[in-house]
Amino acid sequence: PDFLTISFGVKGEFRQSQQHVYIELQRDGFCQNPFFECLVAEIPEELKSKEGFTVVGYALYFYTYSTWKGRSLYLEDLYVMPEFRGINIGSRIRLFYESVGRSKQCVRLQLSVLNWNTPSRDFYAAKGGQDLTVSEGWHFVRFDGQNLDNLANDAPKI
Amino acid sequence: PDFLTISFGVKGEFRQSQQHVYIELQRDGFCQNPFFECLVAEIPEELKSKEGFTVVGYALYFYTYSTWKGRSLYLEDLYVMPEFRGINIGSRIRLFYESVGRSKQCVRLQLSVLNWNTPSRDFYAAKGGQDLTVSEGWHFVRFDGQNLDNLANDAPKI
Repeated sequence: PDFLTISFGVKGEFRQSQQHVYIELQRDGFCQNPFFECLVAEIPEELKSKEGFTVVGYALYFYTYSTWKGRSLYLEDLYVMPEFRGINIGSRIRLFYESVGRSKQCVRLQLSVLNWNTPSRDFYAAKGGQDLTVSEGWHFVRFDGQNLDNLANDAPKI
Repeated sequence: PDFLTISFGVKGEFRQSQQHVYIELQRDGFCQNPFFECLVAEIPEELKSKEGFTVVGYALYFYTYSTWKGRSLYLEDLYVMPEFRGINIGSRIRLFYESVGRSKQCVRLQLSVLNWNTPSRDFYAAKGGQDLTVSEGWHFVRFDGQNLDNLANDAPKI
């Protein structure tokens, strides 16, 4: 959908042309064993946005897995165009989970939030969401290709 | 493989019978669009473990996705039986990445580490791995099914 191209294009402009982002998303999301899935919110033609779009929101997500608990859903992006934001964020997340999570028997919904985003963190906490970084001490670690080459040298045997 | 059943069974005993874990892993990992993938380390029959296993290690992983960067690999579990731990952890992670990450064009390898696990955290940092919880402030948040029902009520419109 064109809307997705544009939304992702905004992010993509930091690294490459919009066209390239579009090709990547097609390749990665619409192949056999896709790397992500996407739900779009579509409205009737007569209610289209100022710019003429009928796809006015999306949720981009993928599945993660715990050998302790089984299938989880990870919500990477949840976006609705400002002019179509009629329902609250919690309802949007719940609608998303009910559309995908239940049918795929996912026992958890996970997401990440930035430390400084206290309104969202407070909201998630008030709803019973567990901040695993605070309660259990989990940290995200990321390596990119170059750093991976360093891993093999002088590492402890554990 | 039987080894996997046993390894996962140890974790699974907290919640259900080993047989149930085995059925879940078969269902979720060996279906169309699997929820996880697994690499196993196999040795020749004549070198089998004391208990008679030839599969002596595994890496359990899945793919995540960033609309900024594209495909990532997430390493959930990396296990080698103590009696077969000949190479260091860094080499094991690099071998894993080279077996899977490069062929799938993943631009990142990600994993999680607990706050108190300072030897691992120091090691990852020394190798150039970025602790995103420290450097950017990312927190993990988890909802389970019951809490998801609460989300819809009295949530801010953002």
